[in-house]
Amino acid sequence: MESNFFAELKKYFEKFPGIGPRQASRFIWALSDFPQADRENFGKLIASLGNHLARCAECYRIFSPAAPEKKLCSFCAPGSRRDQSSLMVLEKDSDLLNIEKASFYRGLYHVLGGTLDALNEDSLARERIKALHARLAKRNSASLEIILALPPTKLGEFTSEYIKKVLEPLNIKITRLGRGLSTGVDLEYADELTLKQAIDNRK
Amino acid sequence: MESNFFAELKKYFEKFPGIGPRQASRFIWALSDFPQADRENFGKLIASLGNHLARCAECYRIFSPAAPEKKLCSFCAPGSRRDQSSLMVLEKDSDLLNIEKASFYRGLYHVLGGTLDALNEDSLARERIKALHARLAKRNSASLEIILALPPTKLGEFTSEYIKKVLEPLNIKITRLGRGLSTGVDLEYADELTLKQAIDNRK
Amino acid sequence: MESNFFAELKKYFEKFPGIGPRQASRFIWALSDFPQADRENFGKLIASLGNHLARCAECYRIFSPAAPEKKLCSFCAPGSRRDQSSLMVLEKDSDLLNIEKASFYRGLYHVLGGTLDALNEDSLARERIKALHARLAKRNSASLEIILALPPTKLGEFTSEYIKKVLEPLNIKITRLGRGLSTGVDLEYADELTLKQAIDNRK
Amino acid sequence: MESNFFAELKKYFEKFPGIGPRQASRFIWALSDFPQADRENFGKLIASLGNHLARCAECYRIFSPAAPEKKLCSFCAPGSRRDQSSLMVLEKDSDLLNIEKASFYRGLYHVLGGTLDALNEDSLARERIKALHARLAKRNSASLEIILALPPTKLGEFTSEYIKKVLEPLNIKITRLGRGLSTGVDLEYADELTLKQAIDNRK
Repeated sequence: MESNFFAELKKYFEKFPGIGPRQASRFIWALSDFPQADRENFGKLIASLGNHLARCAECYRIFSPAAPEKKLCSFCAPGSRRDQSSLMVLEKDSDLLNIEKASFYRGLYHVLGGTLDALNEDSLARERIKALHARLAKRNSASLEIILALPPTKLGEFTSEYIKKVLEPLNIKITRLGRGLSTGVDLEYADELTLKQAIDNRK
Repeated sequence: MESNFFAELKKYFEKFPGIGPRQASRFIWALSDFPQADRENFGKLIASLGNHLARCAECYRIFSPAAPEKKLCSFCAPGSRRDQSSLMVLEKDSDLLNIEKASFYRGLYHVLGGTLDALNEDSLARERIKALHARLAKRNSASLEIILALPPTKLGEFTSEYIKKVLEPLNIKITRLGRGLSTGVDLEYADELTLKQAIDNRK
Repeated sequence: MESNFFAELKKYFEKFPGIGPRQASRFIWALSDFPQADRENFGKLIASLGNHLARCAECYRIFSPAAPEKKLCSFCAPGSRRDQSSLMVLEKDSDLLNIEKASFYRGLYHVLGGTLDALNEDSLARERIKALHARLAKRNSASLEIILALPPTKLGEFTSEYIKKVLEPLNIKITRLGRGLSTGVDLEYADELTLKQAIDNRK
Repeated sequence: MESNFFAELKKYFEKFPGIGPRQASRFIWALSDFPQADRENFGKLIASLGNHLARCAECYRIFSPAAPEKKLCSFCAPGSRRDQSSLMVLEKDSDLLNIEKASFYRGLYHVLGGTLDALNEDSLARERIKALHARLAKRNSASLEIILALPPTKLGEFTSEYIKKVLEPLNIKITRLGRGLSTGVDLEYADELTLKQAIDNRK
């Protein structure tokens, strides 16, 4: 029932996070009901995204370059008003957005694009940890703190341990987000690790 | 934090069914990591969708026209191999797809694009019910059965009643999908209407 | 940490439908906070349940006998005001309760206490199907209709087929609850069997 | 349809945590199918619960008294092997059970049976906070730490603050469970307070 055109377009929609074949079809039906002018504009925006959004060459977050030759986001560019003495390592852009929304953290970031995958030597995260090492090796680490803000899961822990080892020779202060009770967690169902850390980190 | 470009692109993604602002942002971040060639191709496909997919001028389902001047889908075009003696009225393309997948129905369709909205005189569904009337008035109704396959909800019932009234002067046989127990429904929790219809329709 | 007393009491609570060890413990803690008089009364009610509630010897539904020697519920006892011309076969008491609540069915019942289990020759349902046969063999079947109201699942279908075969020699009219769309079912996600039956049973 | 007996028994089952009328009915039907000997034993266990389980007069946890005159649980009785230098204040027995299962905490407890309710002057929690004050006033507080392990919710926070104020004159070290990321929490969806505390408590 699907034409080549339909199938090709559907394949792209299925690349979006959380989108399966059924929802991809539904997106195309919705697109069919957009006015033609909207489809043209929408398609043009997508095709030109590379001129308007880029990953910062330093911290790998998405930003809008003022000019195509700008490779650094406003947080990393010379003259940045962000606090240069702390750098938070994150898994993904949406984590960064949530932390920016809370607006109490004023330091720098480094987005890994994932956690380490033990089975995959060439993961994006591995490359970006190398880049983090290079980024830090260039600068004076005396007054710097690296905050590992990776997910509180096995893979997140594993990635944090790996980063610590990689950065060890640089002699930088490295901390991790505090573990303990999150808002709304029920003590009756909390896992052992969370309970233990909540007690160890009592204050 | 969002550029105009980001905001404009996000607005389009938010028009897709079930997509809120958070997921729209996530789609754009995902797009940023597509290869540039993929973004260009994807954008081109979207802009050219009007040349490849269209709503049939007769039954309003999405189809792939063999040529731009073709206004009728293969089900409705002259020479169609579909059974011309039954016509199923549906709410949406995805319902049609599910019925085609089951592949026991061989008749025609009419897609309303929604149910009637009592508060909105100019809904898409209302226009397409008018079009259904015109479509049926043209042809010999002697051997025709209209199957109302609208959702088993209040709005679906209301729309079915409305269609019946509109088509009454045409003197066509009109049926509705049988109500009763769907697979997996628990008798202990079934609503009164379903129970009553399951008993009335016993056989 | 658990005493023998706690463990023994907990074992009983775990026999209730849907209750696991964690909730059974929570029930005992709640009981500990009941006033002593309430615990004594509650315990006495449970111990004396056999004097107050019984399964009807005819239809196997739970009822309150007016006197201990009464073996038949008010639906089955001589002088019953229920419609004797239809008998609905059900899986469980809670299905019966839901149908009584809807209050349009006025006939008799037969509660199987489960569906047939292909692996278990001696299931409760099997015994009660034998009892149904005996119950029906005694009476004039001329004006009788058996309504099979078993769950719309594989096991429910299997049990319905089995009952039909067992009752065949008695030459009684046997019907099943109508299959089709239940209130709220989405046509887009309906399974093939439900769609087929909804179309076959259209009217 | 319900007899007085049924209604009275049902009322007791509805007092259990999380049990509504429908499940209470289902429990009674299940009881009807217990062997009579089991119902008698079950009822006897419930009626005699007061001889076998009690709330400790000191810490209010449920325990099995070796003899009816024993008012203190093994944790609180003279000769206890528990670490007397820490005392954890909890909302409920099931929280205590979860912490005991993790088996790294060796101190004492104090179970409030709820959190404070601003609208209810006479709540159980309020009485047990008074009792906590009395319990602590009797003993030497020099080497004692009170660990507030109340739920990470508004009411839990409110109760913690209240306890701190009540105990202030006793000059005891009071700590709270550490707040931060619990296992499995997604940084993208974490609330602002959790994020802030996770950063403040980094280490």
